[in-house]
Amino acid sequence: MTAPAIPTLPAIAGFIAAGGSPVAIADAALARIAAWDDPALFLARVDPHAVRARAAALAAEGPRGRPLFGVPFVVKDNIDVAGMRTTAACPDYAYTAQEDAPAVARLLAAGAVLLGKVNLDQFATGLNGTRSPHGTPRNPVVADCIPGGSSSGSATAVASGIAAFSLGTDTAGSGRVPAMACNIVGLKPSLGLVPTQGVVPACRSLDCVSVFALTVADAAAVLQAMAGAAPEDRYSRAAPPSWRAAPAPQPQWRLAAPLPAQLVFDSPDDAALFDAALARAEALGGSVTRVDMAPFLAIARRLYDGAWVAERTAALRGMVEQRPEAVHRVTLGILRAGLDKRTVEAWEDFHEAAEARRLARALFAGVDILLLPTAPGLPSLADLAAEPVAANSRLGTYTNFVNICDLAALAVPAGFRADGRPAGVTLVGPAFAEARLAGLGAALHAAAGVTLGALGAPVPPPPAPPDLAPDEVPLLAIG
Amino acid sequence: MTAPAIPTLPAIAGFIAAGGSPVAIADAALARIAAWDDPALFLARVDPHAVRARAAALAAEGPRGRPLFGVPFVVKDNIDVAGMRTTAACPDYAYTAQEDAPAVARLLAAGAVLLGKVNLDQFATGLNGTRSPHGTPRNPVVADCIPGGSSSGSATAVASGIAAFSLGTDTAGSGRVPAMACNIVGLKPSLGLVPTQGVVPACRSLDCVSVFALTVADAAAVLQAMAGAAPEDRYSRAAPPSWRAAPAPQPQWRLAAPLPAQLVFDSPDDAALFDAALARAEALGGSVTRVDMAPFLAIARRLYDGAWVAERTAALRGMVEQRPEAVHRVTLGILRAGLDKRTVEAWEDFHEAAEARRLARALFAGVDILLLPTAPGLPSLADLAAEPVAANSRLGTYTNFVNICDLAALAVPAGFRADGRPAGVTLVGPAFAEARLAGLGAALHAAAGVTLGALGAPVPPPPAPPDLAPDEVPLLAIG
Repeated sequence: MTAPAIPTLPAIAGFIAAGGSPVAIADAALARIAAWDDPALFLARVDPHAVRARAAALAAEGPRGRPLFGVPFVVKDNIDVAGMRTTAACPDYAYTAQEDAPAVARLLAAGAVLLGKVNLDQFATGLNGTRSPHGTPRNPVVADCIPGGSSSGSATAVASGIAAFSLGTDTAGSGRVPAMACNIVGLKPSLGLVPTQGVVPACRSLDCVSVFALTVADAAAVLQAMAGAAPEDRYSRAAPPSWRAAPAPQPQWRLAAPLPAQLVFDSPDDAALFDAALARAEALGGSVTRVDMAPFLAIARRLYDGAWVAERTAALRGMVEQRPEAVHRVTLGILRAGLDKRTVEAWEDFHEAAEARRLARALFAGVDILLLPTAPGLPSLADLAAEPVAANSRLGTYTNFVNICDLAALAVPAGFRADGRPAGVTLVGPAFAEARLAGLGAALHAAAGVTLGALGAPVPPPPAPPDLAPDEVPLLAIG
Repeated sequence: MTAPAIPTLPAIAGFIAAGGSPVAIADAALARIAAWDDPALFLARVDPHAVRARAAALAAEGPRGRPLFGVPFVVKDNIDVAGMRTTAACPDYAYTAQEDAPAVARLLAAGAVLLGKVNLDQFATGLNGTRSPHGTPRNPVVADCIPGGSSSGSATAVASGIAAFSLGTDTAGSGRVPAMACNIVGLKPSLGLVPTQGVVPACRSLDCVSVFALTVADAAAVLQAMAGAAPEDRYSRAAPPSWRAAPAPQPQWRLAAPLPAQLVFDSPDDAALFDAALARAEALGGSVTRVDMAPFLAIARRLYDGAWVAERTAALRGMVEQRPEAVHRVTLGILRAGLDKRTVEAWEDFHEAAEARRLARALFAGVDILLLPTAPGLPSLADLAAEPVAANSRLGTYTNFVNICDLAALAVPAGFRADGRPAGVTLVGPAFAEARLAGLGAALHAAAGVTLGALGAPVPPPPAPPDLAPDEVPLLAIG
């Protein structure tokens, strides 16, 4: 019996249900790692013998209802796995983790099989994937383009079919931009929904553990398995009791999109692809209202110019002040800028952030989901090398404000430019609205005319919305 | 018919119900202002003719169900009243307010009668009441002691019987310490429960509008009348739908108090008065657990040493940098220190604050109310003059952490030292637990063996807890 060629969760579960073994799944993943042969992907592998032993142990136990039984995954190397080095792509920063991060521990408890730890923009600072001393992971979809970052390895491992899903982190878009770059799904959960204990801090107050997967339903299932407050994590918080991650379709959607004049794109194709995504959303039952995005775009700019850059610096001050030569040149420049910031000015940023959160609450009192381009466009490796800071900043245009505003987001593929570069659309909603985002996200993904990652397989059909009689008004639950 | 000598809300309502006029209530208040004759109390009075006209207009309309019909009150002069100057006790900072602060507007809509705006520690920075260019309001209970601050005039106006209630503000204890100093009740609501729109910012992210009253039930009734989110206030937030302020007694209370070794007092009498308050709480059905307060005391110290002093500076930067000669000498020293703070260090404060909030959540998962001394003791005017910064800091020992930790608090009188200085106990609970605090607070106040303010009248009996059969377990609601 052959392991499924396209490692979605339903395919793996079907294989297991039909008598297949987790060992065959693991062997297939190990074979894909060898065939993919990207020296910039893994920063540390779980020894293949250990991977097979773990799969064999699972096979001996049987599924026992575990939702990720036998599912291979990789972890961004700024997240702790007990007994492995955590490097954040900075060898001089590295330490050996004593414990699994709670997110990892919950996935392992759910039956997932860890393949290793993957490359990232150093200290998760960047949105492009080239800021690593270990090289840039190869983009499986368009080899001459950046893989996106900072979760570069996490996205390429999924798009190439090595891992069924992966963990990234997302402070400013690191869980969304690489999803666009690699034609896969990126789910950035609500702040505090997944513990960030055991994660190397970027902006500790804004960091989220995120999920990459081939499909929206898979990303939601992974999130469901690792969500929940950790009592010792100061930034984790309890979800509403009714919270679920699984896609919740609706027969109607109240959607928002930016005023056309506020949208910037790299090319007319990128603009057309976003318009097409909006049109699909309307065809799926959504009504789109154009809204003023200026306050959100303004707070986005403060993320790298204002108080939060100093939050990154605070987390890495020892490196910046005592071992600057060990830090990536571009990253060091960013982190050093944080040393000069004054608190009296930081409060202007915080008060503006509070105002942006207020405006976001007001927005989502009237709409269900805000639709945005995931980024203005995908730069090539050459584009990025020519402008390593400016091109990176541009990638965060539509992502940087989301965490500051306490919102959840889901990036899904939106088709390809004529030159083959992928585009993406991001669904943004209030905290704990993951199920709502997944409901529309799955439908938009299925309607986008794309295949999964770099694998050529069709997108599965989304769950159907509940039927309503014509005179019924749908109830829109927040949770 | 004579207006009630003790202007509690039930006394005023009873007077009105018996056919008395709001004009008689207003006349009595105006007569008390004249008799009290403290030139340091009012910074601006509503013209007595206007007060009487307002009362006459109310009399003509009739109560129409308004909960504060004809009730005289004063407002701290850092809160806007349309058409009056807002000075924050700094004449050079003053401006004429165009609109009522929402808190004031709601009280006026509830039928209350404004007498004027009262003195405070300049820019609400201080806990003692002496930091004003307009002198120190006289303490009605012990004339040689400070009135407490920063809401000095708000507390003395109530303790002297001029106003039935008053508005203060509370960032670090300004709504609690003056209540202790003046033998009255001080209610510091949850962050965001009362809009801070139209309030001169101290620490904008932590500021609360607070209530002083003679009784707990009166303070709760005033809070009920002005609670509720204001859509344009970035720091206001919606209370749970079940939220009420009215005292909610319980047959049993799970109480916490600091480890004895963590308590500091000015005198053995102060210590004995706190122990007696704990004993009364136990006699009222409470079980007291001693808890480690070290993390809360540590975050309290950061309020004036760390990032939040720069928040004060940010709000008043123009004054500090361009008109320093117009700022009170002690206040200027504090505000100037905020100019030098670096954001990279502020983040350590914020991460510690997040940890303190986590610990507070954990504490209140297991107990209903934390009991604390309101302050270590009440300094004399001479004590404060000898050590204007250190004695002030000491007053905040048990108050400074509360707002940072997103908690609600209620200060109630706890008796008198042998030398006649009042002491207080403060009840602290989670956000939106005001009714719970008021339930125990009213009972503790009634059991304390004190009279109201400086008025010599007995404390009214508290509402009775619901009866429970011996085998029933009480349900403790958070809201």
